[in-house]
Amino acid sequence: MNRHGPGGDRLEGVSNAQPNPVNAGRFIVFEGGDGAGKSTQAALLVQALGQKGHTVLHTREPGGTPIGEKLRSLVLDHGQGTVDARTEALMYAAARAAHVEQVIRPALAAGTMVICDRFVDSSLAYQGIGRGLGEDKVRSINEFATGGLAPDLTVLLDVSPADGRSRRTVGPDGQPVTEDRLESEPDEFHSRIRDAFVDFAAREPERYLVLDAATGVDILASAIAEAVAALPAGPGA
Amino acid sequence: MNRHGPGGDRLEGVSNAQPNPVNAGRFIVFEGGDGAGKSTQAALLVQALGQKGHTVLHTREPGGTPIGEKLRSLVLDHGQGTVDARTEALMYAAARAAHVEQVIRPALAAGTMVICDRFVDSSLAYQGIGRGLGEDKVRSINEFATGGLAPDLTVLLDVSPADGRSRRTVGPDGQPVTEDRLESEPDEFHSRIRDAFVDFAAREPERYLVLDAATGVDILASAIAEAVAALPAGPGA
Repeated sequence: MNRHGPGGDRLEGVSNAQPNPVNAGRFIVFEGGDGAGKSTQAALLVQALGQKGHTVLHTREPGGTPIGEKLRSLVLDHGQGTVDARTEALMYAAARAAHVEQVIRPALAAGTMVICDRFVDSSLAYQGIGRGLGEDKVRSINEFATGGLAPDLTVLLDVSPADGRSRRTVGPDGQPVTEDRLESEPDEFHSRIRDAFVDFAAREPERYLVLDAATGVDILASAIAEAVAALPAGPGA
Repeated sequence: MNRHGPGGDRLEGVSNAQPNPVNAGRFIVFEGGDGAGKSTQAALLVQALGQKGHTVLHTREPGGTPIGEKLRSLVLDHGQGTVDARTEALMYAAARAAHVEQVIRPALAAGTMVICDRFVDSSLAYQGIGRGLGEDKVRSINEFATGGLAPDLTVLLDVSPADGRSRRTVGPDGQPVTEDRLESEPDEFHSRIRDAFVDFAAREPERYLVLDAATGVDILASAIAEAVAALPAGPGA
């Protein structure tokens, strides 16, 4: 388990950053491959923070707004015919812009703890590296989309492609689950995604908590809750 | 009437340009404010080129592909609730990426003359300048969307905001026409759009044909057909 202390630093090179005010809510993002357990751990963190008296918003990408949900279903639906990589990346960025503007920034400004499944790193990994569009170009359109907002803490649940596939293709009832357009890519694709996430975390260790997704659910939940409690200047802190 | 000779030069500063091959079809874009008569003149050019034996594709933005049409209706429909400026710009860019990849580049490669109502300049004018997002930022996401494809000739139909409004709010039957979300902006907005288009043309006079939209329909059509005939290396030339 590679444990890094969290910090509130912004991404370097973000020219139009609008810093998250010190007394505002904290912005916590879960990243990792499909089947890493992000939804489970996000839900446990939401529960833990609620029990401590925090106001908590749990949201996800792509989606999070009415227009974002429409974009999400357009881009993920197998039935829409070909969606090329550039179009896909711009649609995710559009959904993100609406999400940041309408949901995330207003919640943070109100002192709410915002817990989000996936954010910019997913686009850098899946579109920039997985699809070969280039990390820098995808980062540039996402800086436009977010106006420079970056997470206070990113929890990376690191999962091997094989483990991820077995966890996402079998439902809780033991029945097979249909994979969407990205999930059904071959293991080699998911392996590049994994390496990309680990690389992002290594470049900014103060902003990431990297955990082995194969660790027990309760142990992971404790480690995440501890890292969030250590964040500076959260509401009610 | 400000007449410039057309040329096949690419936009300066486009780092990822994929040049339109010399023997391919030509890419001709109509730009100008709402009510400038773009659709009318585009249709007349399509007819004239067809009569000369060219294979012609007439398309429009936003739209032009199944996913682009869905994005177009999402972004223009009053009923979708708030669409902020960044989201709007990214959705137009996404529709454009699909349009270039699936429709425009394949047609040009097959030697087809491509006539398009609106392209990147409309995004620079409406989102970059009209909405205040900044021309450079909107240009950057559009260079990503197009992979650097630029028109061989842009026909700018220059219309005053008052003339544009009177032409687009009365249908051919003399009955009032409902304006969409962009069209219903005040005249001051449309005035900034007009100045932006004129400025783009002034910076690259070799790539623009600027015409006063108040000129007679037949005179405009002749001027446009003449400029297109003068383009170098079109198919059948």
